[in-house]
Amino acid sequence: MEPIRAVQWSPGGDAVRIIDQRRLPGEFIERDLRSLHDVCDAIATLAVRGAPAIGVAAAMGLVTSLQDFRSDDRHAFAIMLESHARALAAMRPTAVNLAWAIGRMRQRAAATKAAPQNVLAALRVEATAILDEDRAMCEAIGRHGQRFLPSGARVLTHCNAGALATAGIGTALAPVYVAHAAGRSVSVLAGETRPLLQGARLTAWELSRAGIPVQVITDGMGASAMQNGAVDVVIVGADRIAANGDVANKIGTYSLAVAAHHHNIPFVVCAPSSTIDPRTANGGGIVVEMRHEAEVRSLAGVPVAAHGAGIWNPAFDITPAALITAIVTDHGVRLPPYSFTS
Amino acid sequence: MEPIRAVQWSPGGDAVRIIDQRRLPGEFIERDLRSLHDVCDAIATLAVRGAPAIGVAAAMGLVTSLQDFRSDDRHAFAIMLESHARALAAMRPTAVNLAWAIGRMRQRAAATKAAPQNVLAALRVEATAILDEDRAMCEAIGRHGQRFLPSGARVLTHCNAGALATAGIGTALAPVYVAHAAGRSVSVLAGETRPLLQGARLTAWELSRAGIPVQVITDGMGASAMQNGAVDVVIVGADRIAANGDVANKIGTYSLAVAAHHHNIPFVVCAPSSTIDPRTANGGGIVVEMRHEAEVRSLAGVPVAAHGAGIWNPAFDITPAALITAIVTDHGVRLPPYSFTS
Repeated sequence: MEPIRAVQWSPGGDAVRIIDQRRLPGEFIERDLRSLHDVCDAIATLAVRGAPAIGVAAAMGLVTSLQDFRSDDRHAFAIMLESHARALAAMRPTAVNLAWAIGRMRQRAAATKAAPQNVLAALRVEATAILDEDRAMCEAIGRHGQRFLPSGARVLTHCNAGALATAGIGTALAPVYVAHAAGRSVSVLAGETRPLLQGARLTAWELSRAGIPVQVITDGMGASAMQNGAVDVVIVGADRIAANGDVANKIGTYSLAVAAHHHNIPFVVCAPSSTIDPRTANGGGIVVEMRHEAEVRSLAGVPVAAHGAGIWNPAFDITPAALITAIVTDHGVRLPPYSFTS
Repeated sequence: MEPIRAVQWSPGGDAVRIIDQRRLPGEFIERDLRSLHDVCDAIATLAVRGAPAIGVAAAMGLVTSLQDFRSDDRHAFAIMLESHARALAAMRPTAVNLAWAIGRMRQRAAATKAAPQNVLAALRVEATAILDEDRAMCEAIGRHGQRFLPSGARVLTHCNAGALATAGIGTALAPVYVAHAAGRSVSVLAGETRPLLQGARLTAWELSRAGIPVQVITDGMGASAMQNGAVDVVIVGADRIAANGDVANKIGTYSLAVAAHHHNIPFVVCAPSSTIDPRTANGGGIVVEMRHEAEVRSLAGVPVAAHGAGIWNPAFDITPAALITAIVTDHGVRLPPYSFTS
């Protein structure tokens, strides 16, 4: 089966083609994003999600959204570029890849002293490079992560840091895909990941589509699965990694890290090196995005929480470095104590 | 506002009147259960749930379901009684209160050497005593639990061990109700409790109805809330307590116990003394009910998990005594090391 491509150029190259993840697993729908509004809306509503995929889509979307301004004069084009770059970078405050990808696009534009059309061409080359590097990054993480998968490994993961979260074979799931491709036995327990159920909807979908055994559990079951000896390793992705190794990832990750620590089960973070933010000293400096209470209050339009109750809905939590066995990036495996510099 | 009565006699006394908890928080519907089928179905489908409420409802349901057989001869009536008692006791294997309540009804019947009509009258007296004692039990737990509520206490709870789970003011929530009634400030964080969302639907409903501030979180947020200093004490109920203090409770409880231990936050179990099963030496001897995968796979008829994935759906988990700060029953507060004898 053709591998999933969560983010790619449309056949004509004038749009960013994404899989609309809001519709999975019920419907497989691809959408072509062209305007700034299209791209921002897709990121804000999680049609495209996962820190690496967001960075790639934003870089590519910066190109497609500027196409209509290629005949403007240099000054007007530069203003549009800056305005689009800022809008895109502001869509998700926690994912550092987004700021990183947009920053890289800005640098490329700044280095190109030419007419808007040439700047746009240079930006397209840069966005395509970011896309290709993302795919290579996934493969590298998959290779480096092999050492944490014993034979017949039973991997517990959270949220979706798989192919749907990147342009390639994922981050947390990359070692699983690489092991499976090499004919090694591996299976996955996927935490459903309330409120938006990325584990149940996305991780379960992409793994079962790839023929890898996957079982869905609710977020409260992870510790119990560990207690019952059903987990060999926990592997999760990251939205931001601070200089000291503290990791921001989907809410619920910290709970699994505490439980893995309690059970002496390895807790491994797999992420692109672009996720590392050396300017953030530790987790205390990471802005945790608060999302709308409606996500918890209802599910697929069905109200589930009593009307009179309040809601607390942080998108991420912070797992301290002390609970993390290893951080695997495309550059290799880092073990504690962590110290990331620019 | 009139206190919620989750289980009571119908006005005519010929049926068990329950609040249909499958319909909350959307609709407040009371149902009158009379036949064995009605009562068993209500217990199996969680229309009535919570270990104490199940025990009370089963005892009362044994009475109402035998009404049509009161004119049978002694032998035939005894056979019906035994058959109904067995059917009721088998509905939920983990909740010890159910077996306890039915056992008590059997003893009362055995002690009554009389015509079926008189046996039935004696059983009604016994079931009413179980009902009244349940209410008194809740009040006692609420009083004994006060010592774990600091001023302005922020309590994290899981599932629903409140008024809806008992005939009175609940078990885990009893200290909260008692504190609120005494004019002390108290607020609750309610874990939503997937798959069946008893926290979001029931705990949030009954607390907000009582005017007690309550905020719903997803099950993955509890540890993060503790890390953020938002939790003073975790209070949960129990479905069964072994002789050594190991506790079976709703899946997700163990995860919170591990997190509370990690954060040095008191983890308190509140349960009726009938929940203690001294014949079970430790948690290893507790049968954990596995429930149907459909509960995780969909929500209110909306599919949420990918079709190709498997599901693991244990109803309960086991929290080892070592993680439990105190066990509060109607008889008082027990501290470690626990040793319960008959």
